[in-house]
Amino acid sequence: MENHRGSVTAGKAIRCKAAVSRNPGEALVIEEIEVEPPKSWEVRVKILCTSLCHSDITFWKMSTGPFAIFPRIFGHEAVGVVESVGEHVKEVQEGDLVLPVFHPHCRECRDCKSQKGNGCSVFGYRLNPDMPRDATSRFKGMNGEVLHHFLFVSSFTEYTVVDVAHVVKISSEIPVDKACLLSCGVSTGIGAAWKVADIEGGSTVAIFGLGAVGLAVLITQLHLFNPCPNHALLIVAEGARLRGASKIIGVDLNPEKFEIGKTFGVTDFINPATCGEKKVSEVIKEMTDGGADYCFECIGLASLMEDAFNSNREGWGKTVILGVEKHGTPLALNTYLLLRGRSVTGCLFGGFKPKSDIPLLAEKYLDKELNLDGFITHELSFQDINKAFELLLQGKSLRCIIWMDN
Amino acid sequence: MENHRGSVTAGKAIRCKAAVSRNPGEALVIEEIEVEPPKSWEVRVKILCTSLCHSDITFWKMSTGPFAIFPRIFGHEAVGVVESVGEHVKEVQEGDLVLPVFHPHCRECRDCKSQKGNGCSVFGYRLNPDMPRDATSRFKGMNGEVLHHFLFVSSFTEYTVVDVAHVVKISSEIPVDKACLLSCGVSTGIGAAWKVADIEGGSTVAIFGLGAVGLAVLITQLHLFNPCPNHALLIVAEGARLRGASKIIGVDLNPEKFEIGKTFGVTDFINPATCGEKKVSEVIKEMTDGGADYCFECIGLASLMEDAFNSNREGWGKTVILGVEKHGTPLALNTYLLLRGRSVTGCLFGGFKPKSDIPLLAEKYLDKELNLDGFITHELSFQDINKAFELLLQGKSLRCIIWMDN
Repeated sequence: MENHRGSVTAGKAIRCKAAVSRNPGEALVIEEIEVEPPKSWEVRVKILCTSLCHSDITFWKMSTGPFAIFPRIFGHEAVGVVESVGEHVKEVQEGDLVLPVFHPHCRECRDCKSQKGNGCSVFGYRLNPDMPRDATSRFKGMNGEVLHHFLFVSSFTEYTVVDVAHVVKISSEIPVDKACLLSCGVSTGIGAAWKVADIEGGSTVAIFGLGAVGLAVLITQLHLFNPCPNHALLIVAEGARLRGASKIIGVDLNPEKFEIGKTFGVTDFINPATCGEKKVSEVIKEMTDGGADYCFECIGLASLMEDAFNSNREGWGKTVILGVEKHGTPLALNTYLLLRGRSVTGCLFGGFKPKSDIPLLAEKYLDKELNLDGFITHELSFQDINKAFELLLQGKSLRCIIWMDN
Repeated sequence: MENHRGSVTAGKAIRCKAAVSRNPGEALVIEEIEVEPPKSWEVRVKILCTSLCHSDITFWKMSTGPFAIFPRIFGHEAVGVVESVGEHVKEVQEGDLVLPVFHPHCRECRDCKSQKGNGCSVFGYRLNPDMPRDATSRFKGMNGEVLHHFLFVSSFTEYTVVDVAHVVKISSEIPVDKACLLSCGVSTGIGAAWKVADIEGGSTVAIFGLGAVGLAVLITQLHLFNPCPNHALLIVAEGARLRGASKIIGVDLNPEKFEIGKTFGVTDFINPATCGEKKVSEVIKEMTDGGADYCFECIGLASLMEDAFNSNREGWGKTVILGVEKHGTPLALNTYLLLRGRSVTGCLFGGFKPKSDIPLLAEKYLDKELNLDGFITHELSFQDINKAFELLLQGKSLRCIIWMDN
């Protein structure tokens, strides 16, 4: 591969390598592709490293429906350097270290200006397969075919084009592999604990991973356009630990989660399969003197969301939903429990506003408060990207950093 | 009736008049009864005035089930003067102006000490028909029969006995009829707007009274142990008005509510019966540029709670449930709407802690901020108490003050 420099390549198409997904569930193919220059409000980014998230797998496996779109370039957790920028882009410039982020942040709309939420009313949540403003692709195969984008990021390529609303500039002090994690999963989980639940010191917390008794379903099979609650149990636990929660209960069918969970602050563990006739919510109520202050549902199963809600303390118990219900089953709440002082809320990207909150997380890492290193269990080079899929599918990796070869 | 004085009557039973409910749905009978002296932690209160709330009517009508308890002395919105106190009572003394309040506040438990909620883990919410500590009655008929208490207050009597956890001392500056309203309905509605929703200036608010198209059910038929969302639409509106909400939409099948609602800040009105094919939530979204910041459900119908939730703005919309679902139907939430930044919460007594928050409401009234006068539409003397039932059942009164004859 040539070593492209912004000053040389700006305004021109770049030929580079990408891992193209041509058919659902089939191994990615590393091919030469052409990446167009950024249009107005767009940024072309040279990817340094990327990692694999469950949402990539969900869409990669999808063989039917409007979101089964191929050929496509997956990947949405990454870090890179700005190669060139399109017209009107003032926020970043060539050479800046940036995270491309699936969650938009235009900074201009009522939502982005408000401190109350992290939605963006201009870009919102679309399942548009290509660029957000003009719905066209910047990727072409060498035969001229259109290669589609994914979640406005597409990081399984040496170069990508991202709308400026999806770009976050970060300090180059943070090691790039750690920075990479902040662009999706870690931010989602930490934000749920800090921004949405706003856990305070001494609180009790219950985090529901794979919970229902006998539910022999892999976490990966349940996600659909999920804001990456991949191993969210651990990430939320890390967020709760940093806030000084006194008890952090992990609920998961996989007992191995407890061992690794301890590193991230999990103090107690419940395996629903060994609860006998007791409901998980009853066990949690006993362990927390009436119910946990904060409960998190990370999977996306309505029944598990109800378990989380029922495990909440009366008076001020808060249930935070991170998982996307794949089957569209509504969450059925006992309204009398609500009246007795409980609340339910949901969030995407942990309620964080990417451009303002991700740099703060990077600082927390640099201050040795936030544990990011522990999430990185594997590293691979770009040419071995398919191995990262295997590791995640086999439940062997938390995060596998995929280094671009350049 | 004799004019009892605390100094003379303390420690002795008091004979006085009470409006006794002997059979479900039948007119109350004004009888002479005997009111025992307060035991430890109890306070005997001479009622000055009381008012009728929908919860009284709900239980008065109840002819079957464990909560159909007769003979009974209803009434739970009142103001009175302390006649005498039992052992250990330090908080109030003879001559103090007090509100007996159904919502407990022991001030000692973890819940009462926390600023996060208004539950009380010692007294909680019981449907115990008599005194909270020993489950016995302080009322006897002249033939010695036990007359039961109601919601730990029982104010349709010249004298009542209330646990100190249910007594709030207030300044004698506030006219007693206005103070009376603070002991239930008004606090519930204002608290929902201030404490639970925490409405800020410029917000949009939608308040659901009787909403579903074609639902020809009287509000009074729907309540069950309801924290008095009697005319809650108007009270919540008053709370929203005081917080400077820019748009306060009332949703009700009764168009008369709009006229009176204007007095309490309602700026717009939707009659679901005249919405045609449009859903109320669609109309609200159009009126509020995407959904109301805060939605309140005041009736207790799961379908209406869902309408409220669906009328909420993406990003930070908050739905507050005040109504108790009589049929036990769960609230079914689209979890994807939750994830996009909405929350649902419920409250009893408006999230207010009676002993600390009611005095602040009294100050707001004295500072001419809070409109209480507008809620008082009728006044009657105690002997005409049955007329108050008729007025409320016919939907003619908001609050009818019933003055004791003493």
